[in-house]
Amino acid sequence: MKQKKTISIIGAGNVAWHLAKQLFACGYAINAVYSRNLDNAKTLAEQVEAKAVNKIELIPPSDLYLFAVKDDAYSELINSFPKTTAICVHTSGSLEMDILSKISDNYGVLYPFQTFSKNKAVDFQHVPICIEASNPQVENVLLNVANKLSPIVRLLSSEQRIYLHLAGIFACNFTNALYFIAEQIAKQQQIDFDIIKPLIVETVHKIETLSPAEAQTGPAKRNDLAIMQKHFELLTKPQWKEIYKLLSESVAEQEA
Amino acid sequence: MKQKKTISIIGAGNVAWHLAKQLFACGYAINAVYSRNLDNAKTLAEQVEAKAVNKIELIPPSDLYLFAVKDDAYSELINSFPKTTAICVHTSGSLEMDILSKISDNYGVLYPFQTFSKNKAVDFQHVPICIEASNPQVENVLLNVANKLSPIVRLLSSEQRIYLHLAGIFACNFTNALYFIAEQIAKQQQIDFDIIKPLIVETVHKIETLSPAEAQTGPAKRNDLAIMQKHFELLTKPQWKEIYKLLSESVAEQEA
Repeated sequence: MKQKKTISIIGAGNVAWHLAKQLFACGYAINAVYSRNLDNAKTLAEQVEAKAVNKIELIPPSDLYLFAVKDDAYSELINSFPKTTAICVHTSGSLEMDILSKISDNYGVLYPFQTFSKNKAVDFQHVPICIEASNPQVENVLLNVANKLSPIVRLLSSEQRIYLHLAGIFACNFTNALYFIAEQIAKQQQIDFDIIKPLIVETVHKIETLSPAEAQTGPAKRNDLAIMQKHFELLTKPQWKEIYKLLSESVAEQEA
Repeated sequence: MKQKKTISIIGAGNVAWHLAKQLFACGYAINAVYSRNLDNAKTLAEQVEAKAVNKIELIPPSDLYLFAVKDDAYSELINSFPKTTAICVHTSGSLEMDILSKISDNYGVLYPFQTFSKNKAVDFQHVPICIEASNPQVENVLLNVANKLSPIVRLLSSEQRIYLHLAGIFACNFTNALYFIAEQIAKQQQIDFDIIKPLIVETVHKIETLSPAEAQTGPAKRNDLAIMQKHFELLTKPQWKEIYKLLSESVAEQEA
């Protein structure tokens, strides 16, 4: 292929937003941004000098179709997508690669393993890209694209990717859920969340040099039952009591 | 007081280790390090040019006695400690200030709100110090000491401190417990934990500019029941299933 590879982005959510902008920044030509909601498509399309469309038949021919929609939107989308010889790639952590086999023989996955929010810039130097492909030609193209996007690129099978996604939910979504609870507990005592942030940052710094098991501290690790009992009584929300109990048990078992 | 303030450190664990070294680095004279285990006392004492003792009666007269022992060791220690007019300070997040009233009228708390492991250096620029004192004179001394140790100093009541400690357990100990689980899930698929670290770091970066509720992402936040069900099935350990369920519920309620 002599000309610049053209890419259409299917979706305009958080992942589509950051991937499209990064592909554009890497010099790829973004043909179009598709979203059922034209305003959403336009907002992203403007950022990457692309055409905004809200009908599948209006998506122009492209070398690569990059799907970045909610997992439960794929099925309907794939059923109405025209068959093509171009490369079709999805970006989901949880879906098998071959859901795309219905629309092309050249398909694969480009899964950016990171948390994306539209209102927070992401440095792709720190976005691992996980690749899977239906054949070596597609793999080669996806490796080229991925290596332009990020210095961290891995080949992962569908099974590995699904488990990695699951691990990420614990490491990211659920830790953030704990930050939320910590914030609420502090708030009840008129304590600003800012005072907790250095502790959160140091907790992460520690695992740069220690394994999580080595870095573990706290009453559950010390088996300090008196304090744990006291904390359990201080917690007013039954759900938080349960979380305290379960995660303390989990910490205690690390040493087993 | 014209001479340099002298401090004895009671304890040789993680908190004693880092506080003693930082006080020494700030120019304070550490008289002695006390631990029931003389070897532990010696290891720390050598770092701060202090005498190592393993008997309370061998602790030399000091201007300030800084207690940094396990919470359940305080009661016995205080009962055998001689009465003094010097300032006695504990460093516990969970104990009331006035447990020290048995040994001095001049007592208080100097609580470093951070996670400490002996084999990980700590930058005290990022260690909030929470202060409480039995009278204004002690408060003044502790504020002076704390301001030398760290740029982040707060006055907190015993009640506030206990809740802050509890919040810290969620924000630090329990998030680290989740890192451990994430590591184990990845390991099962021969995936190196290193690929998860950028996600962990970004999760923390996000709450520098967004509130935890604003930063929340993931299937539970999107109410993506199909993926959550799939993840639930993939988790083999009943405890991890329970944690997944509870924390997903907790995320879902953030939006309520």
